[in-house]
Amino acid sequence: MANAQNLSIALVHYPVYDKNGDLVATAVTNLDIHDIARSGRTYGISRYYIVTPVVEQQKLVEKIRLHWLEGWGATYNPKRKAALETIQIESSIALALADIEKRTGKRAKTVVTGAAGRPNSISFKELSGLLEEPEQPYLLLLGTGWGLSKEIFDQSDYVLEPISGGGDYNHLSVRSAAAIMLDRLFGR
Amino acid sequence: MANAQNLSIALVHYPVYDKNGDLVATAVTNLDIHDIARSGRTYGISRYYIVTPVVEQQKLVEKIRLHWLEGWGATYNPKRKAALETIQIESSIALALADIEKRTGKRAKTVVTGAAGRPNSISFKELSGLLEEPEQPYLLLLGTGWGLSKEIFDQSDYVLEPISGGGDYNHLSVRSAAAIMLDRLFGR
Repeated sequence: MANAQNLSIALVHYPVYDKNGDLVATAVTNLDIHDIARSGRTYGISRYYIVTPVVEQQKLVEKIRLHWLEGWGATYNPKRKAALETIQIESSIALALADIEKRTGKRAKTVVTGAAGRPNSISFKELSGLLEEPEQPYLLLLGTGWGLSKEIFDQSDYVLEPISGGGDYNHLSVRSAAAIMLDRLFGR
Repeated sequence: MANAQNLSIALVHYPVYDKNGDLVATAVTNLDIHDIARSGRTYGISRYYIVTPVVEQQKLVEKIRLHWLEGWGATYNPKRKAALETIQIESSIALALADIEKRTGKRAKTVVTGAAGRPNSISFKELSGLLEEPEQPYLLLLGTGWGLSKEIFDQSDYVLEPISGGGDYNHLSVRSAAAIMLDRLFGR
């Protein structure tokens, strides 16, 4: 059975495309932090990395995190505390990978996700099989804005098949996509 | 195969519980509107009802809807327009059911959802089977706040099994839960 403890998620705010195809750093949004942390905790993933090189944005995430972990929020809603404990802020995907290597002693394999179909992508079932390997960490990369840069796709170890709803419309929010991915991998 | 056109969703803002177990009307949130509309459109459901008896809240939803359907948003992001076209505002669950009956000529069967397990709940597979019946509409009721009132559970035709992530933590956002439910019903 696929082991969720072998999986970490990175929500990447740079390098991603904007509407015009330019590379930008997107702003962190509060509900991305909460929703994906709650989904991640429900399915038992290892870490949820918020990746942004923008120092002010890192401070904002840390402020939200501490509010729920140590501030008034920790008493008001302990369930939210348990979810946000999985959050870690990193400046880049490389630093998130370095953190996984420090924790586990192994370099994580990267799995990139996107709404468009690509050649050589692996299915959810194949990824689920890979996550059965003992002690091999994986990092699932989720893009914000209009998606992860071509460079990230080219450098990743695996590309995951897009989620299809059966029709030609395929514009889930990153929060919804993350929830569905985790359920397909671990929710049975 | 389960027919998504037989399914509508109602996001219910009253009657739901607050943290203290009192019945309240919760506030509509912008991302509940967008995320669930996008998930609903991806899987091809019939309607997405936003249920609130609070007139000011109905006006707010209508303002958001029109911004994306007819205002600046329709040109800026046509994909969002396609999602928000499924939205309809109703004052109560009864009026959402009346609207379905007007459109289809049949009374919808109600399916209530919640995070806690209950006796006599049906599985996703069983609901998927029910959605194969030709021309029998179903209305999936999603609660906000701390969940739908006991009365709604008692009056509903079916209770859907809760989503489990395998562990003891089960606190998905309503946006994530809706996405996972639609994927389990229609996403293969």
